[in-house]
Amino acid sequence: MSLNWNTITGPQVLVDSRKSKRNIKRMQEKAASAHVALRPHFKTHQSVTIGKWFGKPEETPIAVSSAEMARHFADAGWQDILLAIPMNPRALPAYNRLAREVRFGLTIENADSLKAIARLLNPVDVYIEIDAGYGRTGISWRAHETINLILEQARTMPQVRGLGLLLHAGNSYTMRGEHGIAQIHEESLQRLAELIENLHIPQHELRISVGDTPTCSRMESFLGADEIRPGNYVFYDWQQQRIGACDWPDVALAVACPIIGIYPERNEVVVHGGAVHFSKDSVSIDGNSVFGQVMHQTANGWGSPIQGAQLVSVSQEHGKVRVSEAMLKELELGDLLIIVPAHSCLVMAAFNGECTVI
Amino acid sequence: MSLNWNTITGPQVLVDSRKSKRNIKRMQEKAASAHVALRPHFKTHQSVTIGKWFGKPEETPIAVSSAEMARHFADAGWQDILLAIPMNPRALPAYNRLAREVRFGLTIENADSLKAIARLLNPVDVYIEIDAGYGRTGISWRAHETINLILEQARTMPQVRGLGLLLHAGNSYTMRGEHGIAQIHEESLQRLAELIENLHIPQHELRISVGDTPTCSRMESFLGADEIRPGNYVFYDWQQQRIGACDWPDVALAVACPIIGIYPERNEVVVHGGAVHFSKDSVSIDGNSVFGQVMHQTANGWGSPIQGAQLVSVSQEHGKVRVSEAMLKELELGDLLIIVPAHSCLVMAAFNGECTVI
Repeated sequence: MSLNWNTITGPQVLVDSRKSKRNIKRMQEKAASAHVALRPHFKTHQSVTIGKWFGKPEETPIAVSSAEMARHFADAGWQDILLAIPMNPRALPAYNRLAREVRFGLTIENADSLKAIARLLNPVDVYIEIDAGYGRTGISWRAHETINLILEQARTMPQVRGLGLLLHAGNSYTMRGEHGIAQIHEESLQRLAELIENLHIPQHELRISVGDTPTCSRMESFLGADEIRPGNYVFYDWQQQRIGACDWPDVALAVACPIIGIYPERNEVVVHGGAVHFSKDSVSIDGNSVFGQVMHQTANGWGSPIQGAQLVSVSQEHGKVRVSEAMLKELELGDLLIIVPAHSCLVMAAFNGECTVI
Repeated sequence: MSLNWNTITGPQVLVDSRKSKRNIKRMQEKAASAHVALRPHFKTHQSVTIGKWFGKPEETPIAVSSAEMARHFADAGWQDILLAIPMNPRALPAYNRLAREVRFGLTIENADSLKAIARLLNPVDVYIEIDAGYGRTGISWRAHETINLILEQARTMPQVRGLGLLLHAGNSYTMRGEHGIAQIHEESLQRLAELIENLHIPQHELRISVGDTPTCSRMESFLGADEIRPGNYVFYDWQQQRIGACDWPDVALAVACPIIGIYPERNEVVVHGGAVHFSKDSVSIDGNSVFGQVMHQTANGWGSPIQGAQLVSVSQEHGKVRVSEAMLKELELGDLLIIVPAHSCLVMAAFNGECTVI
């Protein structure tokens, strides 16, 4: 599709379909050659249009992170949906409706949640979240006894269709480069293997779901896992580039922002594009929080990063961009800057999944 | 209105109408006694329902920060709308429609913008933004010559209805306590007065619009100003409480989040409520970024802050809350935590203005 830049009036998300589809295909090929299933996490894009780039809805198992998101994709034809966040007992009626309509999976991390599941009228898959070192949610991989108790209880319940273990090695986000990612990857899988050895239930009765974008992007083997569950790779972003999970040409999402102020005395411009568009997620450059990287504009999208041109602060609707003296001289009010955000998932959430596909 | 806590299933914004209406009334009384007009900034709430708490739409001049927001409130009956962010030449068609329907004001900060205004078919008010030390947008208060040139040119244009100067002393946000706020307030107004003395156009031909929530909340006089333009005061938030712009009982917005994980070994719980709900805006406590303060729940809302119970990290949908050992023992999965966010404007933007009024 050819892009008419003149139709862009305000901050607008651009998705480069060629790059995104290439990212999707690459992960599918990797999963196939690693002999694991792929369950992409759809919280990154939240878009039905983009969701269909992954394949036919009825043939694509997905992960989501809220009951609303599950409802959104169930209504659009997806039929195997895993809620990859610990279940919320208050959302039981929503879960029940979903479980009636699709193959629906819930994530739990304690025996109490089984009491809520016992009140469901339709069966669900139940995944126990394992914390293998990230320290956000999940039961410690060392807590064999607790996990065995939950599995034994769950396995007897008529509301439980399939049983699994779920792992998200979010600590891979603190790494830099393939070596660091590999370290977290190996540590997590090793801890999972150690746990599985100590379970009373045979491994083949459990579905093992792992994954986060850095490890899934850079690692080739997922020994012990039945499926991988990355999400961000559909677009990537500046954080992923910094981690080393992708390279600049893989980044498939940017925000086009019009320049509304030019300040030669401080080598800055201000764009319409602020915290409500970029979120306040950042990367750390020389100890400073930076919110986006300005890219070279091309006829139909963007190319490489412009050295020294970065979104250095955001308030609600304003974004302050530092540029070189030479670049500033070329800029005029109303020109667009194409900015790759720190974190594309939060940008798509801020725009409610609305974007211009190029 | 009585609140049925059982109907809250997921993260939900609660607005305490009693506190909010008291905040609105207090600012109206202050403006009246200071002999300035009040033009509340509606970017904070973005809600037509809450907008009507300020008075009849047709009698309430407002400020907004995007053409979309102006359209939203124009459609709902507001008739005097100032876009208090530098104009975006790409949005001219939207501005033109607004100028046909309502009294519409644009903010500019250079002569180039007048070329765009010259293409409008309907007259607008034009405000020149002055930078009195904040350093985000606006022309330096010292640039008398530039400002005189723009004013002289603008005043001859048929598209220009009224002329004004606009100031936002956003540097008040870095202050702590009344003394610091007073310092910024006095400095800004003094710089504005110095500029006005050096203008060729008589002051009575200019409308002087100033304001930000900290100074408007704590100062009593706005010498030299015709109107004040605070926004956040309708709700306030933790940042405003930290600045000293308000006290805890003034904060009228909180987010109710269900507990989805309990971790006695680290005195933490995890709620459904993350960056897509709270944004990643924070306050700094002992050098750490903290995203929200947990409040005592009452039958119909919330009371004072719970010491030591804070939202210490957020990922997309998860929020990690540190609590005391004693508090943790009382909590169960599915319980709600009532959390005052760091920045209420970004929360309302994240929820698209949707909230439960109590």
